[in-house]
Amino acid sequence: MLGFTSGNAVRQIELEKKFDGRLDPADQRTWLKQMASEPNHVGSPHDKENAEFMRSKFREWGWDAHIEAFEVLYPTPTKVALEMVAPNTFKARLHEPEVKGDETSERTKDALPPYTIYGADGDVTGELVYVNQGLPDDYKVLDRHGISVAGKIVITRYGGGWRGLKPKLAHEHGAIGCIIYSDPRDDGYGSADVYPKGSHRPPDGVQRGSVADLTVYSGDPLTPGVGATKDAKRLPIAEAKTLLKIPVLPISYADAEPLLAALGGPLAPSGWRGALPITYHLGPGPAKVHLTISSEWSLKPIYDVIAVMQGSERPDEWIIRGNHHDGWVFGAWDPLSANVVLMAEAKAIGALAKDGWKPRRTLVYASWDAEEPGLIGSTEWAETHADELRKKAALYVNSDGNGRGFLKAGGSQSLQTFVNQVAAGVRDPQTGVTVLERQRAKILVDGSEKGAEDEAKKLAKRVTSGPALPLGALGTGSDYTPFLQHLGIASLYLGFGGEDKGSGIYHSIYDSFDHYVRFGDPDFAYGIALAQTAGHVVLRAAQADVLPQRAGDFADSVGRYADELHKLADDMRERTAQQHRLLDENAFVLAADPTERNEPPKRESSVPFLNFAPLDNALVRLAKSAADFDAALARAIRSDVATDARKFDRLNAMLQGLEQALIHPQGLPGREWYRHMIYAPGLFTGYGVKTLPGIREAIEERQWDEVDRNMKIVAGVLDAYSSRLDAASAALNQ
Amino acid sequence: MLGFTSGNAVRQIELEKKFDGRLDPADQRTWLKQMASEPNHVGSPHDKENAEFMRSKFREWGWDAHIEAFEVLYPTPTKVALEMVAPNTFKARLHEPEVKGDETSERTKDALPPYTIYGADGDVTGELVYVNQGLPDDYKVLDRHGISVAGKIVITRYGGGWRGLKPKLAHEHGAIGCIIYSDPRDDGYGSADVYPKGSHRPPDGVQRGSVADLTVYSGDPLTPGVGATKDAKRLPIAEAKTLLKIPVLPISYADAEPLLAALGGPLAPSGWRGALPITYHLGPGPAKVHLTISSEWSLKPIYDVIAVMQGSERPDEWIIRGNHHDGWVFGAWDPLSANVVLMAEAKAIGALAKDGWKPRRTLVYASWDAEEPGLIGSTEWAETHADELRKKAALYVNSDGNGRGFLKAGGSQSLQTFVNQVAAGVRDPQTGVTVLERQRAKILVDGSEKGAEDEAKKLAKRVTSGPALPLGALGTGSDYTPFLQHLGIASLYLGFGGEDKGSGIYHSIYDSFDHYVRFGDPDFAYGIALAQTAGHVVLRAAQADVLPQRAGDFADSVGRYADELHKLADDMRERTAQQHRLLDENAFVLAADPTERNEPPKRESSVPFLNFAPLDNALVRLAKSAADFDAALARAIRSDVATDARKFDRLNAMLQGLEQALIHPQGLPGREWYRHMIYAPGLFTGYGVKTLPGIREAIEERQWDEVDRNMKIVAGVLDAYSSRLDAASAALNQ
Repeated sequence: MLGFTSGNAVRQIELEKKFDGRLDPADQRTWLKQMASEPNHVGSPHDKENAEFMRSKFREWGWDAHIEAFEVLYPTPTKVALEMVAPNTFKARLHEPEVKGDETSERTKDALPPYTIYGADGDVTGELVYVNQGLPDDYKVLDRHGISVAGKIVITRYGGGWRGLKPKLAHEHGAIGCIIYSDPRDDGYGSADVYPKGSHRPPDGVQRGSVADLTVYSGDPLTPGVGATKDAKRLPIAEAKTLLKIPVLPISYADAEPLLAALGGPLAPSGWRGALPITYHLGPGPAKVHLTISSEWSLKPIYDVIAVMQGSERPDEWIIRGNHHDGWVFGAWDPLSANVVLMAEAKAIGALAKDGWKPRRTLVYASWDAEEPGLIGSTEWAETHADELRKKAALYVNSDGNGRGFLKAGGSQSLQTFVNQVAAGVRDPQTGVTVLERQRAKILVDGSEKGAEDEAKKLAKRVTSGPALPLGALGTGSDYTPFLQHLGIASLYLGFGGEDKGSGIYHSIYDSFDHYVRFGDPDFAYGIALAQTAGHVVLRAAQADVLPQRAGDFADSVGRYADELHKLADDMRERTAQQHRLLDENAFVLAADPTERNEPPKRESSVPFLNFAPLDNALVRLAKSAADFDAALARAIRSDVATDARKFDRLNAMLQGLEQALIHPQGLPGREWYRHMIYAPGLFTGYGVKTLPGIREAIEERQWDEVDRNMKIVAGVLDAYSSRLDAASAALNQ
Repeated sequence: MLGFTSGNAVRQIELEKKFDGRLDPADQRTWLKQMASEPNHVGSPHDKENAEFMRSKFREWGWDAHIEAFEVLYPTPTKVALEMVAPNTFKARLHEPEVKGDETSERTKDALPPYTIYGADGDVTGELVYVNQGLPDDYKVLDRHGISVAGKIVITRYGGGWRGLKPKLAHEHGAIGCIIYSDPRDDGYGSADVYPKGSHRPPDGVQRGSVADLTVYSGDPLTPGVGATKDAKRLPIAEAKTLLKIPVLPISYADAEPLLAALGGPLAPSGWRGALPITYHLGPGPAKVHLTISSEWSLKPIYDVIAVMQGSERPDEWIIRGNHHDGWVFGAWDPLSANVVLMAEAKAIGALAKDGWKPRRTLVYASWDAEEPGLIGSTEWAETHADELRKKAALYVNSDGNGRGFLKAGGSQSLQTFVNQVAAGVRDPQTGVTVLERQRAKILVDGSEKGAEDEAKKLAKRVTSGPALPLGALGTGSDYTPFLQHLGIASLYLGFGGEDKGSGIYHSIYDSFDHYVRFGDPDFAYGIALAQTAGHVVLRAAQADVLPQRAGDFADSVGRYADELHKLADDMRERTAQQHRLLDENAFVLAADPTERNEPPKRESSVPFLNFAPLDNALVRLAKSAADFDAALARAIRSDVATDARKFDRLNAMLQGLEQALIHPQGLPGREWYRHMIYAPGLFTGYGVKTLPGIREAIEERQWDEVDRNMKIVAGVLDAYSSRLDAASAALNQ
């Protein structure tokens, strides 16, 4: 057991057994039903009630709990309207009706209408252009058709990347408004029966969400880098970089169909077509729409619930566990299904404490508010307590919704073996094997399927000879971001899913208790499995003699990322050379249908050979330092010397904040808030991670000077990491 | 110019210029309008009128023309009905209504209702199962879901392979009836605007067609291997192997939607879902349908038009040019658009002859009847004249419909350089470059696209360093089959397309003149381009000193096919081993959702290492023989000796019927009618070719003894081919 002497490992297994014995699925069901009984978005009465309910529960369970409030910019819509004015007229309903068999779907008195937060107010009229998912490659396709969105209103479908990128890119291309709809191919009848017959998005269902530019910073748009306390210095709204400049509206596919059906212009490429019974065209026009959005732009209070259990031996090493509690409406799946898991863990740990047990390290259980608009509760708390966290935080463990199926885990790569060991000790409730074995089987089968994607095949290959559960790297989209990517605190994301049927009601009023107990985790068996997984991670991190981690896992992963970069540059070089040949031969013009407008692609700049030497040299050093450290630690833990508690004290002190070696104070190019040099949300993916982001995005964007600069920066942080490992090895070998 | 001495090459260019000058697009338009003015399927009055019209035209142009009639089994429907009887009732319309702007769409007095020919009569009622495209892999997926079609009626969508395979496989799996529908994703509104607004299949449009088992033999089901002359010996209907055993009905998507919407059972896999606005399920039931088909099973007369122009120097070497003239209803696209091209060629050649020119070899221009039900007109003629054809036929050049876009060419691989040379002499009417350059550009651009399929990438790679127009290999689906695959006559298929919009009305009443001149080749510019391409092929073959061919092209292609077989066996071996590992680890069960029925895949038999030595040795010999022959011929053509006409006479005699060396008298396993050992329609693809079919299908079907046997057979025919090349080389080197 990583980080444990053999004697303590035996005691730890006992502790985890006791912990497991205190978990009761009925608790989760009761709490979920109550907390999802009313709309609980930021500013709603029930949001505050939920926070107060949790505070009282944590206290009842023996925790030192309080609510920490912030004041954050949270615009709410006062008028939202969309109508088609040509070639025929149609007024969008923009309303999600109640459905039979879903008790809360009529309880919408306190709910806000479907909207996206942090777009601009506006009253615009323009021709419509269909831009598919509205991502950079989509605009390249439109360019090939000679279509510009300047002065137009775009309609884009959900999917492919962070919601906020769609209007951001539309604005950058000159659009004056942005409509985002949910195509039935993606999460409506094209993918499964719709609610209430089945689980998926009904015709009038709308996906709400934030369109803040989270790739720049997360949290309150007005207080980047500092806590949004009452007296914080705030930016004027006009200067907040994460606020968008054009109005944005999410709509249902029932509302989208007449708009899309009225588009003329070229046929949409086959990959752009959804499941509506129409022929998808690009426009522009003749469909012309009028979009109106106005909002009330005040500050609103948010309520983080913070519960602390002081460590008996190492009180200044904190194991933090978080999940948010605000939803878009009822939020049963997202986030409450996992928030009640966190509560179950806290109750069980409280019971252990009542029996006289004390954690060696300090536990901090947090239920964040305002994750939905932009990871605000967690970010403001992390920014407020940044100095203390840099000193004390040892690990942050996040979850954000739960379901039936397979363990999904991502995080700092040094934690991979640790997570694998924990997963090997949790039973899958449906099959009886461990959740580790089940996930491994899934990866192997997915990779073996005919037509499996390259990523699935690669993962299966890794699993065949490597870890059963390869830890994913983290982009953004949940509350780990301020901890991991802003502060450099080692972090994990954990959750089950893949067999549940939750995606179809994401961010709609149908994300309800009734829906969850039919299509999510009906008997809360996976609620128990997640409580065991996250609980064991927390308890092992709290009790370990040395914080569980394997430097070799990190070195291996960064080595793999670097290999990807070599290949990326080589592939781009070859593809670019090929594009130049084809352009020089006029092949694009000859291959195109002359009766349609077809532009050859823009000539890409040639890809030079890049200087990978600084990175590759740093990796050679890292691999050796990591191997030395892992070996020295294993020897120390195994040997009798291990009983020398002071040696471990010294070692823990040396390892505290190790992940922060990967932080660079200047941050990433153009977004200084993101300081982790190994993981970041992609500028053009959002949710999706970019590993070694400074180098990778510079290559992708063909900024060769930036490649050079970032190659050195990354080599620098890796060398600093290696130095810390070397120092720890030296201490161990004394 | 392959096969021409330099002096004759110059004269040939002159001849082709004169030929081109005799082509007039207005002719094609006039003939197309007239011939597509009434339904012209087998047995219709207009079918016979068209044959007689052509005979008179050919005679007018100076050809020796006659009609050769056969009597063939041609059932026509007397009653066709389909209704859903549970869980609700619905009566399928089975009718294609007239549309505005399409003059002939109301002229359906003589038309047959939408049906498929050569299914069984029957009156069956059963639960419905959706089987996707109804091909072997689809049944494997159903097996994984624990779904059997025994005693059920299947509904399958068009696409993926020969139409007749769908009911054949359904029957083999125990189904009692088969419905085939056109999903709007494939050729309806999901792929383009529908007729008459656009070109694609309107809601009530139906794809008719043959469901004969063409993979066993083509032609009249009652006279395999012999001509269906008046007095031919005929099989009893019950013994005809190409007739299916269950009733089959093609329907529109308007008729299919209520049936599919009424299916329950598991969700259809994502690749199985079409563009109807429903959630696709597999069944079985609760949808239950009642299908009735009865037919009149008489013999009907068919009319092949044969026009001959005797060769002045080598009358016993025949260059045959064919296209069929029967359509399913009006048949403007399919087949008349290319039949009028063939007529244009004949008219131009006739004009050259009137000016005193004579072909050196004999020309045979043929317009076949009854291609649609099963390549009957061509097959019966080829079988009737088999002995003479084996002696005299030097080349068969086929077309079957034409459109706007790119030159598609397939055929005997020894003709690849020949076709490239011809294509380098024809201008693309839209871009002004040669049709060769344009096709090359298309292949290169297609292969360079993001997400291009492996086949497209491979083709682009071949084109980069090899022939600009790689000649495809031929499966079946048009009239070359009896010539190439039954008799072993070197054959070509030629046609333009890819920019036209014809697929959506395929085999419906909307395949009309009005549709063709809007969406096909409005000014018949590609009708001229095809007349030039096919005409130049015919004229060069007729005039060449030595029949144009390059043995090295054939050797290269067979070498590539053999490489594919090595890779096929290796990939199957690895995939099978992986499947066994996953089955042994119980991974399929662990990875599956236990709340749904999921069966692990059936354990495939292990793939042993196979004895490729006979094939590989034969290929080494073939490569050398081909290189020697090509070099010897090139020397002879270049040298003064080339003026020795008797030497060429001897050589032509030695090369006559060379392709027949690739015939094996016992035919392919289980289908002795198919005798070509290099090309055949796949048993489970139909249209799609299988090269080296005896070996390839034995590997695919894991019949290892058959692999061994066929490896030797193929090596034998390749050695025979090499021997004939060696003999010719020796004669040349004398």
